[in-house]
Amino acid sequence: ESLAQQQAGNKGVGVDVELTSAVNTDNDTFVERNFTASEIEYCRARPDPQASFAGRWSAKEAVFKALSSYGHVESKGAGAPLIDIEVSASQDGAPVVTLTGEAKQAADAAGVKDVKVSISHSGAYSVAVALAQ
Amino acid sequence: ESLAQQQAGNKGVGVDVELTSAVNTDNDTFVERNFTASEIEYCRARPDPQASFAGRWSAKEAVFKALSSYGHVESKGAGAPLIDIEVSASQDGAPVVTLTGEAKQAADAAGVKDVKVSISHSGAYSVAVALAQ
Amino acid sequence: ESLAQQQAGNKGVGVDVELTSAVNTDNDTFVERNFTASEIEYCRARPDPQASFAGRWSAKEAVFKALSSYGHVESKGAGAPLIDIEVSASQDGAPVVTLTGEAKQAADAAGVKDVKVSISHSGAYSVAVALAQ
Repeated sequence: ESLAQQQAGNKGVGVDVELTSAVNTDNDTFVERNFTASEIEYCRARPDPQASFAGRWSAKEAVFKALSSYGHVESKGAGAPLIDIEVSASQDGAPVVTLTGEAKQAADAAGVKDVKVSISHSGAYSVAVALAQ
Repeated sequence: ESLAQQQAGNKGVGVDVELTSAVNTDNDTFVERNFTASEIEYCRARPDPQASFAGRWSAKEAVFKALSSYGHVESKGAGAPLIDIEVSASQDGAPVVTLTGEAKQAADAAGVKDVKVSISHSGAYSVAVALAQ
Repeated sequence: ESLAQQQAGNKGVGVDVELTSAVNTDNDTFVERNFTASEIEYCRARPDPQASFAGRWSAKEAVFKALSSYGHVESKGAGAPLIDIEVSASQDGAPVVTLTGEAKQAADAAGVKDVKVSISHSGAYSVAVALAQ
């Protein structure tokens, strides 16, 4: 059985939890280095921008870990900046992942065809779980 | 490659976190609208009914998100009441998901054959993760 | 369709959340019953041993639940000691699961070929999500 056959159908999984208050959204440099213009616009327009940024931050981290967990992701890709993992909202509110730049290159090279993520908030925390497949 | 082929083997994922104390189990209308008679009986007989209800609530939300994440779930199904997602306990304690009504219709239409969920509690929080496959 | 065909491609999922402070790392008997020598050495050498032990504990619990969730896991395996689920760090820091003893027997008998886990910490909590496939 080849490596590719062994991998066939296998998924990678990632989880991330964040204290919602700990994501430093007051720091413009941090925000602009990690969030796309479209993400920033979306989060700032939400009723609770701090929670929206924290949820997206959790989602990006969870996707990053899911890509690493999938296997065969090159180390350069593993260090891809989080701005290359964009999390947008579909019409029904479910988050949609779009990979660009180094994250996309790493995912393509590893054979990842689809990445899903789910986000939740309660009390002081934001949590996200991602699946690379 | 057709849409069906692209989807083949893909899973949907959902996560939900809840402050255990925030699930309003004192409100009979809320409880009866969202939990089946069998779930209510089970949770009320547990050592910590509040935690049991909160865990099941998290599980229902996580399954709901996993179904949406799977894709091709019709919007009507996406609005299915949570009572249509029943979470019961197997003999070894692991939760088992049974879909009925609109949730089942939506899952069938999307091609979901199996839904798994896992629940955990610690401190003030209940967390659940679901997989639609 | 046979049971094996229905199961083909299906995954099991597990989640675990822990108050990081609640994992009793001062109790040598508890630690040695649940962690391998290699895990103990690794966690004690980390900047925050308490968080490292709690994260690994969450990971073991999540893997245990994912194996149960996969299905067809024999009850004896379901009671496998957590020391049989070893969580080590790969070169890039991502956790790697190695099953031994009863956990391995149960996983083999159920047809589980691969187990992935992801761990996260924030504030007072450690969370892990596992996938049995």
